[in-house]
Amino acid sequence: MRCDNMSAFIVMDIVREAAKYPNAIHFEIGQPDLAPSPKVTQALLQAVEAQQFSYTESLGLAALRDKICQYYDRTYGVKITSNRVLLTPGTSGAFLVAYALTLNKGDKLGLTDPAYPCYKNFAYMMDIEPEFMPVDKQDYYQLSPEQLQGREIQALQISSPANPTGNIYRAERLKALNDYCMAHQIAFISDELYHGLVYDEQAASALQFNPNAYVINGFSKYFCMPGMRLGWIIVPENKVREAEIIAQNIFISAPTLSQYAALEAFDQAYLDEVKEKFRQRRDFLYQQLSDIFTIEFKPQGAFYLWADVSKYTNNCYEFAQEMLREIQVAATPDIDFGRNGTQHYLRFAYTRDIEHLREGVERMKGWLATRKP
Amino acid sequence: MRCDNMSAFIVMDIVREAAKYPNAIHFEIGQPDLAPSPKVTQALLQAVEAQQFSYTESLGLAALRDKICQYYDRTYGVKITSNRVLLTPGTSGAFLVAYALTLNKGDKLGLTDPAYPCYKNFAYMMDIEPEFMPVDKQDYYQLSPEQLQGREIQALQISSPANPTGNIYRAERLKALNDYCMAHQIAFISDELYHGLVYDEQAASALQFNPNAYVINGFSKYFCMPGMRLGWIIVPENKVREAEIIAQNIFISAPTLSQYAALEAFDQAYLDEVKEKFRQRRDFLYQQLSDIFTIEFKPQGAFYLWADVSKYTNNCYEFAQEMLREIQVAATPDIDFGRNGTQHYLRFAYTRDIEHLREGVERMKGWLATRKP
Repeated sequence: MRCDNMSAFIVMDIVREAAKYPNAIHFEIGQPDLAPSPKVTQALLQAVEAQQFSYTESLGLAALRDKICQYYDRTYGVKITSNRVLLTPGTSGAFLVAYALTLNKGDKLGLTDPAYPCYKNFAYMMDIEPEFMPVDKQDYYQLSPEQLQGREIQALQISSPANPTGNIYRAERLKALNDYCMAHQIAFISDELYHGLVYDEQAASALQFNPNAYVINGFSKYFCMPGMRLGWIIVPENKVREAEIIAQNIFISAPTLSQYAALEAFDQAYLDEVKEKFRQRRDFLYQQLSDIFTIEFKPQGAFYLWADVSKYTNNCYEFAQEMLREIQVAATPDIDFGRNGTQHYLRFAYTRDIEHLREGVERMKGWLATRKP
Repeated sequence: MRCDNMSAFIVMDIVREAAKYPNAIHFEIGQPDLAPSPKVTQALLQAVEAQQFSYTESLGLAALRDKICQYYDRTYGVKITSNRVLLTPGTSGAFLVAYALTLNKGDKLGLTDPAYPCYKNFAYMMDIEPEFMPVDKQDYYQLSPEQLQGREIQALQISSPANPTGNIYRAERLKALNDYCMAHQIAFISDELYHGLVYDEQAASALQFNPNAYVINGFSKYFCMPGMRLGWIIVPENKVREAEIIAQNIFISAPTLSQYAALEAFDQAYLDEVKEKFRQRRDFLYQQLSDIFTIEFKPQGAFYLWADVSKYTNNCYEFAQEMLREIQVAATPDIDFGRNGTQHYLRFAYTRDIEHLREGVERMKGWLATRKP
């Protein structure tokens, strides 16, 4: 059957399991605990009062698409026209559009291993064949153009900052990958959902190097609006009408209140505070977990820390279950993210305040002291 | 390419065109103009104040799924367990789930002609082959089991009340179709989005006759919450886990604020008023349009009236364009909905108050008096 190869998104199951323990420490949750800007809340209240309950245009509110264009100009120096921006129900909806636009049945989608698990599951649902390419610590979990050589793929999907590893693609690597894809007619799909949450350097957008890249982003992470289910995709100029036809048919439009809320989401002073909070948590957790696990590098972006736990276990799934049951500390086993040695890793999300993280670290330190490494 | 067969959802283009005329009369819009229950607005304000901005469980809020179960018990006397209910981003999301669960690539989906155009476009996107079966006024636009005989389809999609015709399936016909599908291992997918807006009789749910029917409904029409993008699907017991895996991967979850709002949507006293308003509009418009067009039957449900305009034109698309340009009256040409003589029909939505409808009727009467029938 169509969906036989789809795997459960294990983190959602872990979230449910952890919710059973009132005293649980949550390292499993891939969403910010911080509220969005107060201006966003204010805009929501106004939109409710104004009864903004109708569909919008399928592409989304024109004013919001304009703001997104301004954001690209400001952030990356990239000029795009607003007709190329399509608002979607979460970035989830954006992947559906990207794959529908670039891949026919039986086509191959290049993915890294590890990667966000939903990419491959979208592919399975759409009769697209995922082609996995291992990435590892030697190359800072970046794919290289050499790895693409000789592969018959029609599209390549990467993410930077990456979930689960927290690595980012350096500008020159991103450019090299885009150059390769442009030269070989491979559609480049860039998941930039964690842009903004980058701590020590600047993240580059694929649009800086490839005017026809499919760039996906949204309001769920940096903008702290996950439940509002609003993402966007920037498509090449010659795909605008096709993207609109897809949106008209499979979404009608993205949630209206969320779109009004997002008009106020580009509140830079507030966003700077969000980033600073996550930076402090990263610094704390990186230092603390380095005492007990093998941490290959300091994560540069997103809010994930990827920990090699192989000195304690060869089965991170059982290890995570046990840790939750015995000390009520929830983390995500990385079998969710691939098969490239991922049974040795846990993903720790730093999406709670430092006191919460500290409590989790202390529980783990005590627990691990009783186990043989 | 994958999407070459997808057609624009013409009504969305007409909506955009009509928006250019400040004095336009709107018969084209497939969404209610009425606000949802004040309790819904109140619940929204409270949810915003309480900062309900996180993802929910992928299936949706448990309390809302319980209320949906109670609704089926109350309305149809059908008992379902809440684990079979999945909240989706609009009913659009529910179609994706239904087709992913029931159809492999190359499989055939039985559809009526005319039908809601997005059904076939979902199919094209998913490499499913639509198989069109004509329905017409002789049989009140209902499909019959005889029409299914000998057809190699894996799923059948119907809607009742139907968009664009406003007809409903009588209980015995719905039962006969379900009996046929159960006997021939054909998945039955029932779009019941316009339930509630049924004026002279009671609509039956496919679940009354087929415990394994896939039943789709949502909050966009009867509940007057279109922009909140919230629908649901009820899946067979043995498909629950698979449906959840699909939802985890392709949606994460439905919009959170919309789910909190929907907790208050089952406000029966208010819903009765909504239905009564639409009934009055239907009665008015049916009577008035009968003077100028050929109306085959009094529509029984939804908020559409299907008018045969063939005494004026053989090309309803040009006719609609001309009518919009010359007297600023917007209606939807039925080429959007099929190829079974649909070039002779316009769809009139009665989604504005009677004064607005009256103004439109008067403009059309004056305009048509100058044309040769």
